[in-house]
Amino acid sequence: METGRVEAFSDGVFAIAITLLILAVGVDQARASGSLSHQLLHLWPAYIAYAVSFVTVGIMWINHHQLFHHFAGADRTLLLLNTLLLMSIAFTPFPTRVVAEFAHTNSDRRAAALLYGINFTLTAILFLGLWLYGSRRLLRPDSDMREVSGITRSYLPGAPLYGTATLIAFASPTTSLIMFAVIALFYAISSAVFGRNEDTVARTASVGDPSS
Amino acid sequence: METGRVEAFSDGVFAIAITLLILAVGVDQARASGSLSHQLLHLWPAYIAYAVSFVTVGIMWINHHQLFHHFAGADRTLLLLNTLLLMSIAFTPFPTRVVAEFAHTNSDRRAAALLYGINFTLTAILFLGLWLYGSRRLLRPDSDMREVSGITRSYLPGAPLYGTATLIAFASPTTSLIMFAVIALFYAISSAVFGRNEDTVARTASVGDPSS
Amino acid sequence: METGRVEAFSDGVFAIAITLLILAVGVDQARASGSLSHQLLHLWPAYIAYAVSFVTVGIMWINHHQLFHHFAGADRTLLLLNTLLLMSIAFTPFPTRVVAEFAHTNSDRRAAALLYGINFTLTAILFLGLWLYGSRRLLRPDSDMREVSGITRSYLPGAPLYGTATLIAFASPTTSLIMFAVIALFYAISSAVFGRNEDTVARTASVGDPSS
Amino acid sequence: METGRVEAFSDGVFAIAITLLILAVGVDQARASGSLSHQLLHLWPAYIAYAVSFVTVGIMWINHHQLFHHFAGADRTLLLLNTLLLMSIAFTPFPTRVVAEFAHTNSDRRAAALLYGINFTLTAILFLGLWLYGSRRLLRPDSDMREVSGITRSYLPGAPLYGTATLIAFASPTTSLIMFAVIALFYAISSAVFGRNEDTVARTASVGDPSS
Repeated sequence: METGRVEAFSDGVFAIAITLLILAVGVDQARASGSLSHQLLHLWPAYIAYAVSFVTVGIMWINHHQLFHHFAGADRTLLLLNTLLLMSIAFTPFPTRVVAEFAHTNSDRRAAALLYGINFTLTAILFLGLWLYGSRRLLRPDSDMREVSGITRSYLPGAPLYGTATLIAFASPTTSLIMFAVIALFYAISSAVFGRNEDTVARTASVGDPSS
Repeated sequence: METGRVEAFSDGVFAIAITLLILAVGVDQARASGSLSHQLLHLWPAYIAYAVSFVTVGIMWINHHQLFHHFAGADRTLLLLNTLLLMSIAFTPFPTRVVAEFAHTNSDRRAAALLYGINFTLTAILFLGLWLYGSRRLLRPDSDMREVSGITRSYLPGAPLYGTATLIAFASPTTSLIMFAVIALFYAISSAVFGRNEDTVARTASVGDPSS
Repeated sequence: METGRVEAFSDGVFAIAITLLILAVGVDQARASGSLSHQLLHLWPAYIAYAVSFVTVGIMWINHHQLFHHFAGADRTLLLLNTLLLMSIAFTPFPTRVVAEFAHTNSDRRAAALLYGINFTLTAILFLGLWLYGSRRLLRPDSDMREVSGITRSYLPGAPLYGTATLIAFASPTTSLIMFAVIALFYAISSAVFGRNEDTVARTASVGDPSS
Repeated sequence: METGRVEAFSDGVFAIAITLLILAVGVDQARASGSLSHQLLHLWPAYIAYAVSFVTVGIMWINHHQLFHHFAGADRTLLLLNTLLLMSIAFTPFPTRVVAEFAHTNSDRRAAALLYGINFTLTAILFLGLWLYGSRRLLRPDSDMREVSGITRSYLPGAPLYGTATLIAFASPTTSLIMFAVIALFYAISSAVFGRNEDTVARTASVGDPSS
């Protein structure tokens, strides 16, 4: 299968999953009791959970594009790995909603942080697996090998990072949740600051053109 | 109508339906009673239902692409058949949610399994119908007839397979539900293992190019 | 603005609105009381409402494509008319859910049928308005005028037809609801049976190619 | 990254967010008490909130397209700014639902109007930021500078306008809500009436073609 259609389908799942995150900001809770203004302010963990998940999934979308850019095509194994990756991306609205609702309560914060962290750890593992498989089997002949090994290096820390932040929830759920926000912020800012100029590809450049 | 736009619209419906499956994992249930960690563990049928439906719809998306790849165009009858197929694909979040919520209770497991199975049996019948109509009327002149009859052979068992798994719910709902999971696993693994090399199409290959 | 991007955006709204229709089949109702099998059978108006709305929106999507195929471009007025049309398409999940929930009860069936009918009547009016504006201002120079006036003729009955079915709800809500189903069936079958051969456009034909 | 894929992803988020607005029209409320017809009429603030948000997001989509049309490519900073913009667009269904539910009650109308206004003010600021960054760093070499400064001029009033309408909620929430509707109407009508002829781009024109 040509990668174009796999990317278009994946883009669709990313775009829908990221937009469904708003369902985590529950008007049901706001409807509960007290004045609306009090309720809306009380929802602050939901706003943060929404923003952190949105930025995280947004960065994953950018990375997903970067990976497929290096693949010459997609075989059945890659399609299966990609389906599993999309399954964990599309799962994100659920842990986001759980964190949004339960981060307030001391007793339930740990379970919420664990669920949230397990999902992103799994996503990071699947991302790495997709890349390791694809970069060995389906690489475009004109791919720059330094760039390829640079991507591999930059993807290796993802799963341990999310795994550590998840395990920290056993000691301190609050610290764990803050770490997820910090990771998202770090990736967002570092990519914006250190993003190399080569990323700017002209609108008119043909996709398969490796020159300049 | 050119098949490209029908495929794009169909891709959209597939991508949305597959992402809406997460609504089957109900935070409402988790909100009920008991500690959150207990609630989240108690949701295990919902996680499995989500994964099985996701893989099943994901495989159907890959198959849908394969079918349209062989069609030279789309007439009104094909559009109608495709609309009916999409209607059953877009229906999937409902039986998935029903299984997710009711697989726990002995008394309701049978009804949930029947609903789930009827939906996929119908989907398999519509897939076969779409292919039988399109492969007789709208085949591309350059289609490889061995590949065409290979697809026909591989699609014939789908409806009887899902139909049998559905009927088994009358004897044992649990066995029926396990069979749906096994079918999804079987299709996923067999396609990844036995997927032929020809499926790897270069990113730069033109869609209409039958050579190599 | 080139019509391609307007069509892609419109396709997205159509695809999402049609897939959100499944939210009309409420698991909340199934959760209520009685055995699950009884509840699922009791949901039959929801299944029919889902199917009728799905086929209706699906046909509207096909028609939308047909209209834009004749436009050379999109000016701001057309964009505004198209936004209003999409607004009524995206509204469809709400009346569908209302019919799905309230068609059962004698006292509320009239209000549900009126809401459902008003939405589709408005949609039909906006469709006609979009076509009348676009076909006078933005027609492609190579458009076949017989085809253009054929489309105008075929669109004129839509609004009166839906308007009549809506008004009949005052006399008999049940008849009104049946009429919406019959209209959807009629359009679906007639388009499949009488769909002309010219609709089959080769996958490789260029969009702007007026020949053959 | 080529702008085409960023635009396609953004279009997806716009299309999904605009279609999810229908969730603001809550059937839960209609299910409450009284006859259905009474309930449906009582929902009028929800219909208006839906329409105002739909038109506003629709216009923002048109503007988003206009901006990216002038960019030669997308660097990492633009991707980050665009992600933040999409985050506020995708947030819109929440304040829309809050206005839809709470505009009825005198005590909660202020909080609802503030939430609604803050969201659109933030969106307008992010729009301006995206444009100011992109128009200085990523402009296409063939961009018409008069058009570029024309866009800058037309975007400057957005944030102050929404900010003022938001602040007015402290004096009169009803006036504030009416202003949001008037702003949407104004943009819609003015763009349709004053939309220049140059906006009509031929379907066959190549995207990168600056001539004629």
